[in-house]
Parts: sequence; structure tokens; C-alpha cells
Amino acid sequence: MLVTLEGIDGCGKSTQAELLHDHLKVQGIPFVPVREPGGTELGEDTRKVLLHKRYSISLQAELFLYMAARSELTKTVILPALKCGKMVICDRFTDSTLAYQGYGGGADLSLIRYLSNLATSGLRPHLTLLLDLPVEEAEIRRISTADRMESKDYYYHKRVRDGYLEIARREPQRIKVISASSPADIQAAEIWNYINALIKDNQGRGCC
Amino acid sequence: MLVTLEGIDGCGKSTQAELLHDHLKVQGIPFVPVREPGGTELGEDTRKVLLHKRYSISLQAELFLYMAARSELTKTVILPALKCGKMVICDRFTDSTLAYQGYGGGADLSLIRYLSNLATSGLRPHLTLLLDLPVEEAEIRRISTADRMESKDYYYHKRVRDGYLEIARREPQRIKVISASSPADIQAAEIWNYINALIKDNQGRGCC
Repeated sequence: MLVTLEGIDGCGKSTQAELLHDHLKVQGIPFVPVREPGGTELGEDTRKVLLHKRYSISLQAELFLYMAARSELTKTVILPALKCGKMVICDRFTDSTLAYQGYGGGADLSLIRYLSNLATSGLRPHLTLLLDLPVEEAEIRRISTADRMESKDYYYHKRVRDGYLEIARREPQRIKVISASSPADIQAAEIWNYINALIKDNQGRGCC
Repeated sequence: MLVTLEGIDGCGKSTQAELLHDHLKVQGIPFVPVREPGGTELGEDTRKVLLHKRYSISLQAELFLYMAARSELTKTVILPALKCGKMVICDRFTDSTLAYQGYGGGADLSLIRYLSNLATSGLRPHLTLLLDLPVEEAEIRRISTADRMESKDYYYHKRVRDGYLEIARREPQRIKVISASSPADIQAAEIWNYINALIKDNQGRGCC
């Protein structure tokens, strides 16, 4: 089962990811935590290029770089882990590209879907947890050493958030919206309920 | 006018590129020399990942990386130079991806064409000079410190060479095949004839 965590920068995704990892460990559920871009040597190199401010790159080149990292991560980490019956918890995936480069940056949404489908060989998350937060709140939370993506302006992040909510509206079965304004333990409990339901739905599936 | 230089590793492309640059300088013809992957900060970073042996990457991730570099180079260097009426001499372009990742590596040719068309906004070279050399001769010429691409095996390079010749057969108007077994000055003269003909065909076009 592939579970993805999504949300605008500052929504508290990393905190919730850590809490979820701890919970899975306690429950003895085998899982592989990954992040995008990253999770492979190529992905981490790509991450450095994409998230650091050394130089600006065009939107299209950015898209191709994300796809290179996603392709490598899917092929060498996610698919092998899923094949072994492990859960994969991925911090950002295709929905991030749709929200950031698509809704935020103006890249064609159907092109993103097409390229992402190529990069993932058609793999889609079984569950996506969208931590939703108003941009104003996220801005207050964000640390001053923002990376290239985080330092874009208010209206950009507003489009990203609205984009996420639009994606979630279209796929309510897969995407669960969690209010990131709630206390962290309330969010963690809500996330765990969704994960638990997913595990129950998938019990008895093969493991290598 | 966009002129591309193509050929298998060891065909003497760099030598011919330098001779061509010298000749263009002497003739006072404004030109911009670029190489792929490279020619931009992103391109050079991508080049390091692609051509050095630190780790292996999947064919599809490789394709996306080439497209990222090509997209950036086209948008920020090639198109602005062409707009100013300058000639652009590009060491490798789309035909390299077709020959290496397509014919050599087995990636789908129509997918490469589609992605490359996206990356270049449909820009195609006005003239392509293919320096053709039997693989056996190229292997003798190649230096021992081969990069990741160059160190692939004989049959791979044989498929790449055959692929190049197949591409050239399909587009004889654009692609001129030059025997890289000939002496360097003979090749340089042949290349100059083609460039000269291209310049004459395009005289009177706009310049910024």
C-alpha cells in the first residue's frame, strides 16, 4: 500500500510523518518512509538542484527533473517495497506536482498527469492524506531559512492550497483532508484511523 | 540557424566542433557554441549526474534528465540566440537521445520524440552533421578515462551507430553524413561546405 502525505509548506507534514512512522513501528507494521524529490541518490541530487536557491530554472525543466526523481524512486524503491507487501509512506508525490507546478505555476495539468503516469508506470497512491492549512497560518509557521519553493509569494501558495483542495474534491475516496490547524495529536489520531482502515481493507494480501 | 553535431563517442566531434568554431570566427559569423547535456547551470549539473560513474540510474530517469537539460538550454540559450540571428552550434541534441537511449538503450522512439518536442517547443535543427565512424575505429580512438556513457559495450555502440544511420536515412535533407574515417581537414572542408550552403540559403533573415 502506497500512502502519500501532501500539503503546502508549513502545514506540519514532517511532524505528522514522524508520528506516523513511530506508530507504525510500535504496531510492528513493516513500512518504508521516502520523500520526494529524494529517496534515491539521483533523487537527492535532484532535490539539491530543485530546492536550493543557487539559480532559477524554467517551469518545464523543473517538471522534467521532478519526473526523473519520481521515476527512479518508483522503480528502485516504491515498487520493490510494495512487491514485498510493505507499506510505503511517501512525503509528497504526483499531487504535489499538480498543486505546485500545475495550479501554482501554471503548467498544464493534463501534461503533468501524463508525465507522472509515465514516471510511475501508472502507480497511484492507495491513500493520500492532505494536511490542509490556510496560507496565512502556514506563513507564520514557516522558518526564515525558506528554500526556493517555500520562498515564493502568498498568491502562489494560495493557488497551491486551492489546487490541493480541488484535487481532493475530485478524488474523495483516495484523498482524505485533515485540518492542519487542529492540535498535532488530533491530526495524528485522524491519520491513524485512515491508515488502520486501509490496513484492514488490505489484510491477507501477499508478502514476499 | 541551429546546427547540431552528432556521432558516436570517439568519432572526433569535439575536434570538428573546434575547427568549425575557428572558421566561423575567421569569417566573422556570429555564433553561440553549446553542448548537450550542458550549456546552462542546470545542464552542467545534469551532465555531472549523467556522465559520471557515481551511481547507475534507470533509462527512464535518464531520459527525463536529458529533457530537463534540453528544455533549459533551448529556452534560455538557443531560442534567444536564434532570435538575434546568431547561428547556434550544438554538440549533440535530440538525435543523440534517439540514437543512445532509443536505438542503443531500447527506449521507445516515439516517446523520445514526444518528450523532446515538448522540451524544445518543437524546435528542430536546420542542419545536422553526423560524423559517422565504425565502432571498431571509435573504440581504438577512445581514451581510457571513459565516462559512464562511453564505457558501455561494443554491441550497445553498434546499435547507436546503426540508429544514427537509420535516422539520417529518414531525413537526408537535414542530416548530412560525413565519414569520420577521413582526415580531419577533409571532414572540416566538407562540414564548411554544408554550413556555407546553409548560410547562403538563409541570407537576408532578421537580426536583432
